[in-house]
Amino acid sequence: MNRKTALLLIHGWLMASALFAQNGVLVFQSDFGLKDGAVSAMKGVAVGVSPTLKIFDLTHDIPAYNIWEAAYRLLQTAPYYPKGTVFVSVCDPGVGTERKSVVLLTESGHYFVTPDNGTLTLIAEKLGIQEVREIDEAVNRLRNSTESYTFHGRDVYAYTGARLAAQVISLAQVGKKLPAEVRKIPYQKPAFEKGVLKGTVPVLDVQYGNVWTNIPKSLFEQLGVKTGGSVRIRIFNKDEKVFDDRVVLVNTFGESKEGDKVAYFNSLLNFSVAINMGNFAGKYNVSSGPDWRVDVSN
Amino acid sequence: MNRKTALLLIHGWLMASALFAQNGVLVFQSDFGLKDGAVSAMKGVAVGVSPTLKIFDLTHDIPAYNIWEAAYRLLQTAPYYPKGTVFVSVCDPGVGTERKSVVLLTESGHYFVTPDNGTLTLIAEKLGIQEVREIDEAVNRLRNSTESYTFHGRDVYAYTGARLAAQVISLAQVGKKLPAEVRKIPYQKPAFEKGVLKGTVPVLDVQYGNVWTNIPKSLFEQLGVKTGGSVRIRIFNKDEKVFDDRVVLVNTFGESKEGDKVAYFNSLLNFSVAINMGNFAGKYNVSSGPDWRVDVSN
Amino acid sequence: MNRKTALLLIHGWLMASALFAQNGVLVFQSDFGLKDGAVSAMKGVAVGVSPTLKIFDLTHDIPAYNIWEAAYRLLQTAPYYPKGTVFVSVCDPGVGTERKSVVLLTESGHYFVTPDNGTLTLIAEKLGIQEVREIDEAVNRLRNSTESYTFHGRDVYAYTGARLAAQVISLAQVGKKLPAEVRKIPYQKPAFEKGVLKGTVPVLDVQYGNVWTNIPKSLFEQLGVKTGGSVRIRIFNKDEKVFDDRVVLVNTFGESKEGDKVAYFNSLLNFSVAINMGNFAGKYNVSSGPDWRVDVSN
Repeated sequence: MNRKTALLLIHGWLMASALFAQNGVLVFQSDFGLKDGAVSAMKGVAVGVSPTLKIFDLTHDIPAYNIWEAAYRLLQTAPYYPKGTVFVSVCDPGVGTERKSVVLLTESGHYFVTPDNGTLTLIAEKLGIQEVREIDEAVNRLRNSTESYTFHGRDVYAYTGARLAAQVISLAQVGKKLPAEVRKIPYQKPAFEKGVLKGTVPVLDVQYGNVWTNIPKSLFEQLGVKTGGSVRIRIFNKDEKVFDDRVVLVNTFGESKEGDKVAYFNSLLNFSVAINMGNFAGKYNVSSGPDWRVDVSN
Repeated sequence: MNRKTALLLIHGWLMASALFAQNGVLVFQSDFGLKDGAVSAMKGVAVGVSPTLKIFDLTHDIPAYNIWEAAYRLLQTAPYYPKGTVFVSVCDPGVGTERKSVVLLTESGHYFVTPDNGTLTLIAEKLGIQEVREIDEAVNRLRNSTESYTFHGRDVYAYTGARLAAQVISLAQVGKKLPAEVRKIPYQKPAFEKGVLKGTVPVLDVQYGNVWTNIPKSLFEQLGVKTGGSVRIRIFNKDEKVFDDRVVLVNTFGESKEGDKVAYFNSLLNFSVAINMGNFAGKYNVSSGPDWRVDVSN
Repeated sequence: MNRKTALLLIHGWLMASALFAQNGVLVFQSDFGLKDGAVSAMKGVAVGVSPTLKIFDLTHDIPAYNIWEAAYRLLQTAPYYPKGTVFVSVCDPGVGTERKSVVLLTESGHYFVTPDNGTLTLIAEKLGIQEVREIDEAVNRLRNSTESYTFHGRDVYAYTGARLAAQVISLAQVGKKLPAEVRKIPYQKPAFEKGVLKGTVPVLDVQYGNVWTNIPKSLFEQLGVKTGGSVRIRIFNKDEKVFDDRVVLVNTFGESKEGDKVAYFNSLLNFSVAINMGNFAGKYNVSSGPDWRVDVSN
């Protein structure tokens, strides 16, 4: 190898380091709730790894074992954190079964530490897969925790996420490299077929009861409907139709009256439907997940 | 301008800087709840602005669209943070309508970033108005967010609050100066008229069901009642009387028996009423806000 | 005192300092909930004491006045924080009565700032008592708070905890040294008597409805039951038996079917019982605390 090649390699390595270096920010998500000490114990482990970590929460109110919602919350939130941020997500109905514990580095430079059970379905699509590694639990495990069969969240995921975020270990030290893929949950992707927009209800806006779809504004525009116009919305739970009505599209809720049904684009710029000052999901018994489907047409 | 004048101006400017300089502490309040990623996305934007910010929560459990309660939580909490702290409060039923987005600097040196929809009613009275500026959203808005119509909380308020707290921008760079006033919600101010103390129920002590009034201890003392004595308390919802009884005044709950009704001064030194180890508000169906009125007399 | 003795004393003092020095980490627990500003005001006081403190939450959802649960959450969580961490726990039904305000330093080097009302029962057993001091409230109290009778959480506990964590005061400056003991709540300690394991239900795993006992794996092993085998479990509320059935012991939930009752060891390595993907405590109406007793036998 001549000097020029060596310099180019070093240059490339420095670029990659700068692109993907962890930034000391660590974000936790789980279905543990905040009523007991589980989340706090994870943070205790992290601050024990390094007191200089900046530690945040995504949410800990993922409904128990709801992997789909865990996947969606990552999609909704992670892109707003700077690259180099490490996310630890623990929603793990199969703890102790054969699902792998992994770290995903996305093309955007974000890290995700989680069981590979579908949690990464949406964020991998959105941010792209740069590299996937399997956590070597023989090495990356809180000392004196080997007898604990059930709290992987604290002893493996929080510990590994903290050590990665604090640059105590590199991505390579997490464990062996896996093929660049993650386990996916099947769902209706946004599509425009024969004049009908198709999508799913990935999640509810729980605080307000608004129904969000995965149909992006850019796709919706193919329908040719402008603000002030109306669309027909049908919502299905598997094969059962639970809603079928025309709704006016608004830019802001301020353009409608209290109690009006309104269609709008949410903060992710996805097509959504709500009742102004009311609870759409509650009124029409709409829930979310891969079983829920939405058709929008003229 | 001679040299002495210049020095005096510089001196004054340095004094003002020291008095009102942001301290890197950023506190979030909203009605978003913590079940989805909205609050976390705001923090992601903030840590992206500056990783050295100290980020805290006031509460995110403001009942949806309840501006009065948002106003009260600021009053209850903000004075305990050091001056230079920046508060971002997002409770915004009129998002997209004509209410202004503002930053208030109080005479106490605290900053408040919020829609000017009544949220500042109580804190402006308590801490005094030093300066109000309208957020110039053309400048103070997260890049690549211009298509997002509805998430001002993240793209304008969190972003501007973080940049202000981290001294990336000065108060002047927020936008144009407005008259030194904020929009106010009308309510019964504490008063002593013809032997009757009058006030409102600004908020419940929700965890314990205690009823807090806005009648300060200093005003109560005009009634001439000492600890161990009793007062007549009447509580009204608009014109309907929902409670009318005599209650003993205590220094601490320890002076009463379990199940006793007690009158006391809360941590804000305001007159309050409770059931020892019980839930007064639940038992008598008392709620809070400008519609609730309390009369206290001998 | 000769030079050698002096050096040894200094050496001892430096060792003790290193062993027990506060590390700038401050963790709050309370029964205040997060719906109002009480917790945030405590953090405002702390950040006012020192902006460099690392501030975390254990939980603020301790049921109102439930000292036993406060005690258990400390036991479950505190050992996972590094030594030198200061915990502030405020669950205080007797505020204003004769219970003392104390700081406990454990043999493990953790600090606990709390009313001495039973909150320290379990952590003192687990981590050992190094020193107990009574908070001198004349000195260790937020300035300008002397008129506030009821918010010890903010004005005394948060303030003292923050000053201790930030090394503004030493442990000795907290107040006078007390005997090395704390107030204890009586409960059934784990025991193996005549072939029956005895224990209590210290707490529920509230998010999932699992029932945790205080019977450690090491004691359980005296029963001679291996994974895949079953045990008889009886659960009593005082003298009333609420559950009596045989349950299979598993290493991980993955070894059972959805809906199966399973016995397992939780993250604290204590014997526990659950329904796979279900809510055991809800189904059998099991709650927790010193009144609940569990017998496990062959």
